Formats: sequence, structure tokens, C-alpha cells
Amino acid sequence: MICDVVLVPAELPENALAGRAVAVVDVLRASTSMVAALDAGARDVVPTDSVEEATKLAETLGREHIVLCGERDGQRINGFDLGNSPFEFTAAAVQGKTLVMATTNGTVTLGRVKPSTFACVACINNARAAAGALARAGTDVAIVCAGKLGRFSLEDMVGAGMIASYLSQDGAASTDGALVAQALYQKYKKNPLRALRAGEHGQYLVGLGFKRDLEYAARENITATVPVLREGRMVKLAPDPGAAPTA
Amino acid sequence: MICDVVLVPAELPENALAGRAVAVVDVLRASTSMVAALDAGARDVVPTDSVEEATKLAETLGREHIVLCGERDGQRINGFDLGNSPFEFTAAAVQGKTLVMATTNGTVTLGRVKPSTFACVACINNARAAAGALARAGTDVAIVCAGKLGRFSLEDMVGAGMIASYLSQDGAASTDGALVAQALYQKYKKNPLRALRAGEHGQYLVGLGFKRDLEYAARENITATVPVLREGRMVKLAPDPGAAPTA
Repeated sequence: MICDVVLVPAELPENALAGRAVAVVDVLRASTSMVAALDAGARDVVPTDSVEEATKLAETLGREHIVLCGERDGQRINGFDLGNSPFEFTAAAVQGKTLVMATTNGTVTLGRVKPSTFACVACINNARAAAGALARAGTDVAIVCAGKLGRFSLEDMVGAGMIASYLSQDGAASTDGALVAQALYQKYKKNPLRALRAGEHGQYLVGLGFKRDLEYAARENITATVPVLREGRMVKLAPDPGAAPTA
Repeated sequence: MICDVVLVPAELPENALAGRAVAVVDVLRASTSMVAALDAGARDVVPTDSVEEATKLAETLGREHIVLCGERDGQRINGFDLGNSPFEFTAAAVQGKTLVMATTNGTVTLGRVKPSTFACVACINNARAAAGALARAGTDVAIVCAGKLGRFSLEDMVGAGMIASYLSQDGAASTDGALVAQALYQKYKKNPLRALRAGEHGQYLVGLGFKRDLEYAARENITATVPVLREGRMVKLAPDPGAAPTA
């Protein structure tokens, strides 16, 4: 199995994901929040490319039945129910609900990976479980760093490198992207929070008052929940019966 | 001063280079060969986007006056005088000549950086001199990894990280891209050749019989020659009068 890490979505060649199992990594914060939402009991999460698409879909599905969530410049979008902080996705807010989510990078990147055979969302919180899900797909793997507005984000590569390290330990061959991601993860392995604090987006979020979000997003393997794409919606993957407990 | 490293050319936002000093890094092998060509006495090197453009330009300028060079899939192009190995750019082959060069990645990337105020070519061979030239431009800096057919290449990031390390030591602020490039350079600092051998393109070139090219390209700071773009041609930058000797 070949494990590839795509450093920015624009690096993704057209149709390159056909036949591959894909994970989208947006550590700060779409991946982290989507995992938190499913863990808090959300039924599913529909990723959308834009605020307009999210708003329109909410109307189509019935505004009262769904939770609109997402951010622009890190802040909750006007008229939306929730922003993009994992702490907002409480059971009280999301249990049993369909979420329609519009974020600047993570949900847009998810739109690009639809030609793949298996697409999931990964972050530091669920890295080991995501690696397991990718390995079980039985195909080559691409881990796509969502980045920020087309540019590279340090924390996404640390998350991707963590997943790539698990796959490499299981015998996967690494592309150049996977090698550098693993090297970066090694550098921050003892304390991933340092990477989140060092990166530009982390510093921006701290400035907005989201320091706690970084601390939460840096916690390794706190959940076995892997959101997977099924007919345009992210749902919780059934847990692997053979997996060891994570927490 | 902000030092940015662009990990793949596609990461480059439109017009993002206006007002910035730019270095294009294609360690294996366009940057390395271009530096070797100017060191061997070539008058100038015209980078082109395609074999067709190079051939046409050679006819316009007079085929007998120019040296056509470049590669496809690592091999010399049919009908061209030279390929893309630094060992081909001997004084006998290039002294006093105008070279028209078509490579798959390096010369194509040079076509994208033209809106910048200052554009040069850098590699491991001239990293310190290139860092000095970038710093003297007095603007923000972008180091662009050429990669391979749109994908990321390990060895380019090591070269970019080496240059970014020099600039960072001189007080430049690092973007996320510059941070990861420096981390990667640190990993391979003791022996950059290891990075060239670990990368996919290096392995491909070794398979073609270009093992010596990797060894040559991995030599740090063996020259102070910095090719700079002037009216579409790469020429040797006048050496910095204040610079210490490098070799």
C-alpha cells in the first residue's frame, strides 16, 4: 500500500483519488469539530462549499430540522446556529440532528475528494482510528491537508504525519509528502500542541480567544469516531470490531 | 521581513509575488544545472515552458548561436544539445553561449514567478549566496519549491529550508511553509544527500544512471553564483562585495 500526503488541496491532481482511500485533515478546526459533533450524537453532517450553499440546503431540508454551523475568518457566520469550535458541538445542541456545515477550508476540501472510494475526516483526536479505517479500505491511501485558503497549514501536516506514521509502521510505502509529514510529526510528537501554537492559523485563533480549541485539538487519540462520507453526508463509521479501546 | 516557503507551485496565489523577492528551487536538477551552466561561463539561460517554445525560440535566435538543453522524464530531449545533468554544462559546451532550457518543472515554475520584483534560482550548491541575494532585495521573500509535475518533492524542500534557515538566523519571520522546510532541513542537515536519495525523483534519477548528479546536487555552498531573471533571461548576479568567500 502506498501512503501519500497531499500538502495543499491544489496539489491534488484531477481524478487522482479514484480508487484511493482518502482522509481530509483540518485540525483547526473543521475535522476536530466534525468528530466532536458525531461524538455528541449528531446524526450526520453535510459539508458544503459556501455559506450560500449551506443556507440554501438548510431551507430545502427545512430550517427548523437542521443545525447550521460554520465560520468565516474563524468566527460564527451571521444567522448560523453554531460556529466551528469543538466546544459548541454539545449533545444539547446537536443530538439526533442533521448539521449543515460551511467552513473555509475543511468542508471545501471534502467537496474535492468525492471521486475517491472511501473518504473520511481525520484529526489528531481520532488519528489512530482514522489510520485503521484507511488501512481496512485495502487500497492506496491519500491524506489531504486542508490548509488555509489554498495555503499550507503546519498543524494539518502534523495530523497527517501522525496518521502516516501509523500506516508506515504497518508497512505502507511513503511518498515524498508522507515522508515530510512524518518528519514533522516526529518533531512535535512529544507535544503536538506546540505545533498548533507555532502555526499561523493557531496564532490567529488564539487572538480570537480560541486558545482552548487548540488545546482540545492537540489531544491525541481521544476518540475512535471516524466520520465517513456516504452520499454527501458525513456519518459515524461503525467501529472496527477488532480494535483495541483507545481512551 | 517575512520568509515564506511555497511547497508546490500550485500553492502560489495569483499575483502573490508582487513586491516580493523570489527564489525558485529545483534541486534535481534545473536549479543545480543552471547554476553550473553560469559557473561554466554560459552568457545567459532562457527558461522556457515547453519543448515547443524552446525549439521555436532557438530558431528565432538562430539555432547555431544557442545551446538547446532540457529534459523530459529526466532524459535529454531529442534534437537538443544537452540534457539536464549539471555534468553536461562544461565550459567547452556552454562558454559564452546563450542557453535555451526546457525542463519539466524548474523552468516552468520560473515562468510563474515573473511578477516578482526580484527572481533568482537557488539550490543546495548556492544556498548561502541565494539567501544573501534575497536578503539584500530588502522585501519579503518567497522561496518556491518547483516539485515534480505539480507534486511535492522532498529535496526541493530541503534546499528551501536551508535558505530559510539562513534568513531566519538573520531575523526573518517564518510562515508555516518556512517552518516546515526548516524542520526538514534540520533533519537532513548532517547529510543532505540522504534526502536526495530518499525522495521519489532522486530514486528515479538513480535508476536512470544519474547517481552522480544527486551527489553533486547535495553539496552545500560550493558556489556564490546566483542566477537572476533579467528581461526573461537568467544571468549571473554580480557578487556581493561584502560577502565572505564561500568555498
